[in-house]
Amino acid sequence: MAKEKKQLRPKAETPKGFRDYFGAEVDERKAMLDRIAEVYHAYGFDALESSAVETVESLGKFLPDVDRPNDGVFAWQDEDEKWLALRYDLTAPLARVYAQHRNDLPTPYRRYAMGPVWRNEKPGPGRFRQFYQCDADTVGSASMAADAEICAMLADTLEHVGIPRGDYVVRVNNRKVLNGVLEVMGVAEGETREAVLRTIDKFDKVGEAGVRELLGKGRLDASGAYIDGVGLDEAQAEPVMGFLAAKKKVVERLAAELEGRSDSNSADYRLLANAWSLENGPERAKGNSHTPETGKVISDRLLGYLLELVGSSDQGREGVHELREIADLLNAQGYGPDRIVIDPSVVRGLGYYTGPVFEAELTFEITDEKGRPRQFGSVAGGGRYDDLVARFTGQSVPATGVSIGVDRLLAALRAKGRVGGSARGPVVVTVMDRDRMADYQAMVGELRRAGIRAEVYLGNPKNFGNQMKYADRRGSPIAIIEGGDEKARGVVQVKDLVLGAEIAKSATLEEWKDRPSQHEVSRAEMCDFVKALWDQYNA
Amino acid sequence: MAKEKKQLRPKAETPKGFRDYFGAEVDERKAMLDRIAEVYHAYGFDALESSAVETVESLGKFLPDVDRPNDGVFAWQDEDEKWLALRYDLTAPLARVYAQHRNDLPTPYRRYAMGPVWRNEKPGPGRFRQFYQCDADTVGSASMAADAEICAMLADTLEHVGIPRGDYVVRVNNRKVLNGVLEVMGVAEGETREAVLRTIDKFDKVGEAGVRELLGKGRLDASGAYIDGVGLDEAQAEPVMGFLAAKKKVVERLAAELEGRSDSNSADYRLLANAWSLENGPERAKGNSHTPETGKVISDRLLGYLLELVGSSDQGREGVHELREIADLLNAQGYGPDRIVIDPSVVRGLGYYTGPVFEAELTFEITDEKGRPRQFGSVAGGGRYDDLVARFTGQSVPATGVSIGVDRLLAALRAKGRVGGSARGPVVVTVMDRDRMADYQAMVGELRRAGIRAEVYLGNPKNFGNQMKYADRRGSPIAIIEGGDEKARGVVQVKDLVLGAEIAKSATLEEWKDRPSQHEVSRAEMCDFVKALWDQYNA
Repeated sequence: MAKEKKQLRPKAETPKGFRDYFGAEVDERKAMLDRIAEVYHAYGFDALESSAVETVESLGKFLPDVDRPNDGVFAWQDEDEKWLALRYDLTAPLARVYAQHRNDLPTPYRRYAMGPVWRNEKPGPGRFRQFYQCDADTVGSASMAADAEICAMLADTLEHVGIPRGDYVVRVNNRKVLNGVLEVMGVAEGETREAVLRTIDKFDKVGEAGVRELLGKGRLDASGAYIDGVGLDEAQAEPVMGFLAAKKKVVERLAAELEGRSDSNSADYRLLANAWSLENGPERAKGNSHTPETGKVISDRLLGYLLELVGSSDQGREGVHELREIADLLNAQGYGPDRIVIDPSVVRGLGYYTGPVFEAELTFEITDEKGRPRQFGSVAGGGRYDDLVARFTGQSVPATGVSIGVDRLLAALRAKGRVGGSARGPVVVTVMDRDRMADYQAMVGELRRAGIRAEVYLGNPKNFGNQMKYADRRGSPIAIIEGGDEKARGVVQVKDLVLGAEIAKSATLEEWKDRPSQHEVSRAEMCDFVKALWDQYNA
Repeated sequence: MAKEKKQLRPKAETPKGFRDYFGAEVDERKAMLDRIAEVYHAYGFDALESSAVETVESLGKFLPDVDRPNDGVFAWQDEDEKWLALRYDLTAPLARVYAQHRNDLPTPYRRYAMGPVWRNEKPGPGRFRQFYQCDADTVGSASMAADAEICAMLADTLEHVGIPRGDYVVRVNNRKVLNGVLEVMGVAEGETREAVLRTIDKFDKVGEAGVRELLGKGRLDASGAYIDGVGLDEAQAEPVMGFLAAKKKVVERLAAELEGRSDSNSADYRLLANAWSLENGPERAKGNSHTPETGKVISDRLLGYLLELVGSSDQGREGVHELREIADLLNAQGYGPDRIVIDPSVVRGLGYYTGPVFEAELTFEITDEKGRPRQFGSVAGGGRYDDLVARFTGQSVPATGVSIGVDRLLAALRAKGRVGGSARGPVVVTVMDRDRMADYQAMVGELRRAGIRAEVYLGNPKNFGNQMKYADRRGSPIAIIEGGDEKARGVVQVKDLVLGAEIAKSATLEEWKDRPSQHEVSRAEMCDFVKALWDQYNA
């Protein structure tokens, strides 16, 4: 019997790895997404809201020989035996949508999409199985102008949501340059190539020295285990190391060149010296940013150095050429290296993309949960992927795009104080006489028409203390009281709860008795009086 | 081999019953939801975004003895054997959220939620398996003030999104009144009661006469089949018929009373006559609405008549009393019968709710797909349901709320011309010289900073005709051309595509040659010139 009862009473909980979002959490995310959409819209991108449910084949997951596909997606079998699944990103659905509707869509098709995606993965702290993505993509254009536009739009977006210039940088790299480097190394294909790629992917984690060891004999990892290396000798590993540390190399070379020169008064010398100083010297330490001229010095030399690295590889030279095109387009529009830079150390997702790749990083420091300062890091990434639509149509369709990590960007805005904190609750009109509910509802009606968020207390009004506790939990700045006595005298009491809380912290008994946070106001003047206080507290 | 290839190339299609939403469809729905949220927020309701995935038990669906539960929800088994499902409405998740977080939430808890829900049902024309809902509920208040507030908020919401007063009516009924009527009829429980309830549910479809037949011997339905009746005699059926047609009955009685009176110059007579006329006479035909006084006449008599019908039933009397409380509260706030009326013929969902029920109906006519005029009908419904949270906690928690049918309301706004139609595409800057892409991108940057949506053509620029076709497909009002000749002369060509399309319809060859829709403007003045045109076309 007890068991049956238990079955009838389900446990009130979200499934593991899912969560609910309340009040300000929802409002703040929505406000940020609205700001992002404003920029995307201004750039001519159209909204697309595709179905949350896709066929498993569309998502690019193929049925394994087991009962159901569970490799990362939530999937189930439809009544006509088809496997359906929740989308795990917004890119695979875009490819399906474009293949399905391509005759009705403009070409190129610029679209943005924002909404939840679902991952059937092990949840962890801060890692949920449902989360928001926010993507913008251009399908059907092979032009580097499309990639440059995405980078510029990403910079504009970050500034529009409240990340000031100087607090972020968009880094651009190109998959083809790496392919060229691998070609030069003689590992254009085969197992060694895969091993080198896997090693490069660890760059963010183990750094330059770590990658060098892993390309060679191997290294002891943090846990003390010895990780076997790829087995390249130092000369063989040099091109890929040069690629990853290209920027550093170029700045070192520039320093060496300046040391060797004696024309320190020439305009050319001064330009180079300034470029160096802004990259790695006193000007940088002061927090100063490149001018278009100094930025061009660095990117020209970087591109020149990459061209050396890829040698005679056609693909490599094409990659460098593409990077140069993007850099030129962006420079011409004033997106200098204070906002967007060429940076071969961007390796994230190189496997997935086929050409340019981008990453937006926030450069300010935050303190982590243990109080240690650290860089905020990446909030968006993307690149060119020319093979996705071909899965459906057989025809390759060029495409490029970016995905913003909504939760991380929101966390950054909170860290910057750009969202949250100041949101106050509604004005609460208390109920002193339950037979005069209509009076109290008329009051909130009046307040709302004056643009004030307001509500009547709808719980059991018997205990006034509960009404005040409710106002406190709602974060209300103001409560209004109209008892029988006030009604008879044509007045209301307006309680300033913000000031009240302040006073409660420090007031003496005498001050407390004066109740400076409570104002008696004529009923006719209530709305104006409350409006002035409301505007003050919601400024 | 051919078969293998086919397997590798999935068909690009949404699963059956799902669809994608493009551009203006997404923007218009979002704009409407934003407007709704403004009203909900002003009333003190907080946003809640619960997880899209719930445990099957939470949703109130219990595992049948088959492999998977498929009674209306999309469900699948988690790796730890738990059955999960997509939410099928926003009410069941609210009950789960409130039960789970009740110690951290204010009581009463006012919340709103908007988002997709999923139904594993047979799709049909206009019936999709994923669609939006938009709900507002107050949990934890037993007060009729909570129900009255929901009704007032619903009326405010409809006006705020663009349905003018007079084009909608919110009808209010109460489940307990019907229970009282059934009690009086001697069918308070058992099979006959269920049969009577099922018959009442058909009221919207078969009308008063149809229900009368079905409560009695039965009737021939439209297909020619004979449907057996409940078997009540006419006297037995009278109370429920009176309940369903109460409004009509009251108005008939009023007419009879007026006929029998001889004091046609008294103020009382004139008030009653006016009330009748506004309900069913010449004043109604003129489209005039009740005053608070005439509205009170009708609702007082209606409530009096319902009190007769429920006789000595305690539950019935309680229901009438609740209706009177709601009517009084609403009248005191000025929500008269031009906006909100008591109407016992509202029977939809009576089974689900435990007290007051509401329905918002749009009263204007539209023409259906066959060109016939018909009433637009219901766009929102709700009521009080006091038993939902108890499923989790064992404690009954009073709750009341409303759900707006997002797609129907959007269709109504389209029918009223309140959304859609005028949305224009971005300005398109054409590419005449692919080496000057940076110039063209600088132009769109300039236009965007002036608040103009603008984009560069990113397809292959070789064929100028394709660029114009693209601008046409984008719905662009303006295209800009800067060829080598224009560049040399410091000018651009601004093509007014709206005027161009107008002229193309009617122009003579001579007029056509003059190209009045193309303007040569100096490059420096481009932005101001385009801005003036843009504002004109996006007014």
